Amino acid sequence: MSMNTFGHLFRVTTWGESHGPALGATVDGCPPGIQIDEAQLQHWLDKRKPGQNKFTTQRREPDAVKILSGVFEGQTTGTPVQLMIENTDQRSKDYGDIVEKFRPGHADITYWQKYGIRDYRGGGRSSARETAARVAAGGLARAALAALAPEVRITGYMTQVGPHGIDRANFDWDQIEQNPFWTPDSAAAAHWADYLDGLRKEGNSVGAVIEVVARGVPAGLGAPIYGKLDTDLAAAMMSINAVKAVEIGDGMAAAALTGVENADEISMGPDGPEYASNHAGGILGGISTGQDIVVRFAVKPTSSILTTRKTITKSGEAAEIITKGRHDPCVGIRAVPVAEAMMACVILDHILLHRGQIGGAVGETRGTIG
Amino acid sequence: MSMNTFGHLFRVTTWGESHGPALGATVDGCPPGIQIDEAQLQHWLDKRKPGQNKFTTQRREPDAVKILSGVFEGQTTGTPVQLMIENTDQRSKDYGDIVEKFRPGHADITYWQKYGIRDYRGGGRSSARETAARVAAGGLARAALAALAPEVRITGYMTQVGPHGIDRANFDWDQIEQNPFWTPDSAAAAHWADYLDGLRKEGNSVGAVIEVVARGVPAGLGAPIYGKLDTDLAAAMMSINAVKAVEIGDGMAAAALTGVENADEISMGPDGPEYASNHAGGILGGISTGQDIVVRFAVKPTSSILTTRKTITKSGEAAEIITKGRHDPCVGIRAVPVAEAMMACVILDHILLHRGQIGGAVGETRGTIG
Amino acid sequence: MSMNTFGHLFRVTTWGESHGPALGATVDGCPPGIQIDEAQLQHWLDKRKPGQNKFTTQRREPDAVKILSGVFEGQTTGTPVQLMIENTDQRSKDYGDIVEKFRPGHADITYWQKYGIRDYRGGGRSSARETAARVAAGGLARAALAALAPEVRITGYMTQVGPHGIDRANFDWDQIEQNPFWTPDSAAAAHWADYLDGLRKEGNSVGAVIEVVARGVPAGLGAPIYGKLDTDLAAAMMSINAVKAVEIGDGMAAAALTGVENADEISMGPDGPEYASNHAGGILGGISTGQDIVVRFAVKPTSSILTTRKTITKSGEAAEIITKGRHDPCVGIRAVPVAEAMMACVILDHILLHRGQIGGAVGETRGTIG
Amino acid sequence: MSMNTFGHLFRVTTWGESHGPALGATVDGCPPGIQIDEAQLQHWLDKRKPGQNKFTTQRREPDAVKILSGVFEGQTTGTPVQLMIENTDQRSKDYGDIVEKFRPGHADITYWQKYGIRDYRGGGRSSARETAARVAAGGLARAALAALAPEVRITGYMTQVGPHGIDRANFDWDQIEQNPFWTPDSAAAAHWADYLDGLRKEGNSVGAVIEVVARGVPAGLGAPIYGKLDTDLAAAMMSINAVKAVEIGDGMAAAALTGVENADEISMGPDGPEYASNHAGGILGGISTGQDIVVRFAVKPTSSILTTRKTITKSGEAAEIITKGRHDPCVGIRAVPVAEAMMACVILDHILLHRGQIGGAVGETRGTIG
Repeated sequence: MSMNTFGHLFRVTTWGESHGPALGATVDGCPPGIQIDEAQLQHWLDKRKPGQNKFTTQRREPDAVKILSGVFEGQTTGTPVQLMIENTDQRSKDYGDIVEKFRPGHADITYWQKYGIRDYRGGGRSSARETAARVAAGGLARAALAALAPEVRITGYMTQVGPHGIDRANFDWDQIEQNPFWTPDSAAAAHWADYLDGLRKEGNSVGAVIEVVARGVPAGLGAPIYGKLDTDLAAAMMSINAVKAVEIGDGMAAAALTGVENADEISMGPDGPEYASNHAGGILGGISTGQDIVVRFAVKPTSSILTTRKTITKSGEAAEIITKGRHDPCVGIRAVPVAEAMMACVILDHILLHRGQIGGAVGETRGTIG
Repeated sequence: MSMNTFGHLFRVTTWGESHGPALGATVDGCPPGIQIDEAQLQHWLDKRKPGQNKFTTQRREPDAVKILSGVFEGQTTGTPVQLMIENTDQRSKDYGDIVEKFRPGHADITYWQKYGIRDYRGGGRSSARETAARVAAGGLARAALAALAPEVRITGYMTQVGPHGIDRANFDWDQIEQNPFWTPDSAAAAHWADYLDGLRKEGNSVGAVIEVVARGVPAGLGAPIYGKLDTDLAAAMMSINAVKAVEIGDGMAAAALTGVENADEISMGPDGPEYASNHAGGILGGISTGQDIVVRFAVKPTSSILTTRKTITKSGEAAEIITKGRHDPCVGIRAVPVAEAMMACVILDHILLHRGQIGGAVGETRGTIG
Repeated sequence: MSMNTFGHLFRVTTWGESHGPALGATVDGCPPGIQIDEAQLQHWLDKRKPGQNKFTTQRREPDAVKILSGVFEGQTTGTPVQLMIENTDQRSKDYGDIVEKFRPGHADITYWQKYGIRDYRGGGRSSARETAARVAAGGLARAALAALAPEVRITGYMTQVGPHGIDRANFDWDQIEQNPFWTPDSAAAAHWADYLDGLRKEGNSVGAVIEVVARGVPAGLGAPIYGKLDTDLAAAMMSINAVKAVEIGDGMAAAALTGVENADEISMGPDGPEYASNHAGGILGGISTGQDIVVRFAVKPTSSILTTRKTITKSGEAAEIITKGRHDPCVGIRAVPVAEAMMACVILDHILLHRGQIGGAVGETRGTIG
Repeated sequence: MSMNTFGHLFRVTTWGESHGPALGATVDGCPPGIQIDEAQLQHWLDKRKPGQNKFTTQRREPDAVKILSGVFEGQTTGTPVQLMIENTDQRSKDYGDIVEKFRPGHADITYWQKYGIRDYRGGGRSSARETAARVAAGGLARAALAALAPEVRITGYMTQVGPHGIDRANFDWDQIEQNPFWTPDSAAAAHWADYLDGLRKEGNSVGAVIEVVARGVPAGLGAPIYGKLDTDLAAAMMSINAVKAVEIGDGMAAAALTGVENADEISMGPDGPEYASNHAGGILGGISTGQDIVVRFAVKPTSSILTTRKTITKSGEAAEIITKGRHDPCVGIRAVPVAEAMMACVILDHILLHRGQIGGAVGETRGTIG
């Protein structure tokens, strides 16, 4: 019931604020015997790290992760793994403006109303910095997947920035690591670079769409009715800062399809069932089919902008606010590695749940076809 | 950790299969002293009940709900409330076709793979009939809301059938109860009726979009970071059969907005903060703002169609299948009361969580403005 | 977080009051493919059923259990199993005395204070009748254990009635089913019969001690630090009505031992480690050793007695009360099958947890010795 | 479902091993606005700290606790509180003996069997050092209780060392802080000192009994049937290292009582119901009565002793072992502040649960008497 925890058997509790001494993730339920070290986790944190190009915030944190428990001689022991990232770039500065005024689109006002106290420095708990802890935990999940289900490959990428979507005809997996947007469409990347440059200059920001695909996921994962694989993925993605929508497979577009169009017809392949299409996004009835798991989500534009917006103060007086500081013109970019981390955690969790209820090796199911 | 349970403090566990003796909901954590009787619950079940017009399945079930526990002399006692609906229309018929063949788009194949056994009669546990139990539990949640937070009003309605959306200019709350689609746009209702008639005649089906709005929800509800109000709503809606996407506020459209457009500017009103717009859907940082909570989701087309589709048998042989029987051309219609029920449960749950952590009366927050 | 639920992966939620329409157990997380029918469950309920001899209440209920969901063609399907027992012996009678007065030693006063409403008929939710639902769920757990871990044998028996304990020298497993006290010491059984006869005639009651042993439990079960096998067993037993203490292995007597005495020395046997003694009760560090799991608990005397006791009324006036009706002179007797059921549920649950985190077949561990 | 977590709304997850870099507690669900600083927590850790007298291990750790998150300007913010204690006294030494041999009575063998890997240094996760994290979390719980329910006073003390119990006639609350055993009987303290001296000289150890009392707890706390106050207390105490039994009120002795003796008769006092006795230990039907909550538990003798015991090696060979090092002759002594911490956490948790389900101010119930 922890409100800062996700997962059923692989349980990740994140803690920490943007400008406190440290933040991190307490990971309980990791299987024992998984090879892991700080360098492996650091790889994923470096991918997420801001300040690497002009499209992400210029805040520079080393984001060095430390493993404080649960690992002995390079392997997990089955006990809780504590992952800590110290906050080093805590600039001593005047927070005066956001101490008293609420930034529109931010959690400032709701945290204040609910708790009557808030760590306003850098957004406190509601800062996107919290996602560093998710990425660390996701790195551990990836290590466990590499050991238990090595066929699983998880890849996130951007498919839309503002109103500009990719051209699926240009889709090239190899492009994803080649541009600052992690997009498979190099033409879109070039276009978005210009577009974001313009927005930044005018002190504005924009939203984005990210897609995450998990390939090699075995059939049978998922726990209907309320612990469905898609339910858990929807919750995982919606919990990321600034996310306003989650789609599985065809998503919102499924509403416009007919039943004839939407049916992913089935045939028998050499290794089991094959599907003529994947409108379902790899999940039927909350359980994986063995196809690619396809999740997509929308991130709203960064709320911290250099354009004046109307707001009020804590004492209820009308005010105007400009959010100065180091902010991303499109926070969606940094959501890509975060979404991959969430996907890794959810799939690992369902692998553990599956073998708890069903038994057998990973990928083994009770029902056979053919 | 029950996989058939949702909610944190107001916990709903549904149970039962389409063609077993009964189905129902075990509700734990309902506050004591709530006035409730079977007639109140029946009201909501009747709204969901199929067979009421030609656009929903002709299966006729009385769907009579019985309260087996937790209520004494017309009031809840604080102990678990068991709500049972007996299945009476269990036609004895030949299920031969779906026993051996998997229906594309259905959970048949994944349940079989996972469990090695499935109650194929009417879809078993993955049948939309399970949602009757949700509606019963939602009726109890509504009764609790009526006592604890009487300003909360929850209304669901359809905004799209297939490719045909409503015209927001026609939006009329009073129309919602006046047409079989629970849509606020009477022109759309007329158009959809013709459209669905055509689809049914050709043995086809179509998807839909449903929107649910909760008005009068106090500010301060929600439990960041992973028990956010929007996270829980996303999970609740995604758990409904055939749902493929969930949006909060502007949803996917938020990706195309700029930060300047998306900022819901704040001013001070007589009763507290007011917002110039509601792109956020009433939730910031996972916590309610006091504005309308707006959730939208897409339902895929009914997979049971009278058009031949290619599939395989349990023994892996190629086959064709037509799903005869009593099916909805657009299951989205019946999702409206289900979504309302889920919204009621989630909001009640967060009211209980809020007063657990924060204390005070319902609607009271620790931080004041002005 | 359901307060009426126990278990992690094998989740049992009981519901229902003594004199409502029905009571039962919603069991979520049962593995699929377990052979079960109502007759198997009835076997255990009949063992618990009151009215079978003069030492248990003369209330006569058939306690017929119905399976409403989760079982198809004689096997569990992996979906929730609903077990319902209808209350048939709801005598229409005058409850006047206990409506207004609180029975000392009963939950009457605390339920009233907490909830402001209580179903006073027969104790309502706090009645020992609730344990029928546990026994039904335990029957399902036993069936699952029979399939997954057939070496596990669970046996409960009485070791003390009032101040009169058994003589361990007389311990005979075969005697347990031969007397109304399920005690392994036939001499004690004869003595207790006389003793309880005397108590009943004077309108009094007495406490008891029950011991439950699980033999054949594999090493490695348990989830430190807070989901330890002994922690879960302590909670399971303490949750039974009228239980005031729980012991594992030597229990309270361990306090008087020295470290030299208490060390269960280890040697290597043909099938793995062997222990020279079992002071630990089969659990070290919260994890099973492969020895017998030994749990013991004390049940306080029945609070419903025919002797006048001083109390107060709801309006706070001094009063006297005698609890008429059909009551057990020693409720401990009926706790034996209940404790067996709890033990079965806890062990099954930990088998599922173990294979979730560790993988492998039941009884398989990651570390080998020798 | 975290196995290293306890509590429902006030959730404490402990992490860390005896000789790793650090250990600590992640506390989620603490109410906002609680005044807390490191010095307050340190007070309780210092009470638990070993090496303060000759009856506890001579390991000397500063056990300095750091607050890494969840506190801003001296107050909790409602977000997770991370409490970290660095391990400074990690002597570089030869662990050779316990690397290969299993210490009887220790978790060495079961951790090895379950996980196939174990941090053998100082017992790793199963070390009593883990309880420092509980004490830190308990300090936070006490601060919250001081704010929410200032009448609650929690006191633990020893009542038995080996076979030597206190004389209740000597009971003096003021003595508890005056001797190294936290016992209310100064005569017993003197006697125990001699007794333990002798045991230590012969390389032996002994068990103990600890009692914890919570005074000023309001009536109405507890969540029947499986989240009862006594169930949660039993689990909390049983989860402490080396605990083998838990009693509520009269505990095991309740078995020997008659119903007439056991009934705590009720009368009406100026502030509500009063009871003539407290056999029940302040809990009826799982709900607090307003009387003192009385919990007692037995701790087995320290398993690490200087006397040779028979055991086996990882390769299954017969061996002998003496556990050298800095160990407590009676670990029960250090269990006193740990048990107080657990009591504080459980009571706070149930206060939050109560106001979640019932509403109202702390101590307020729905039912009134008089």
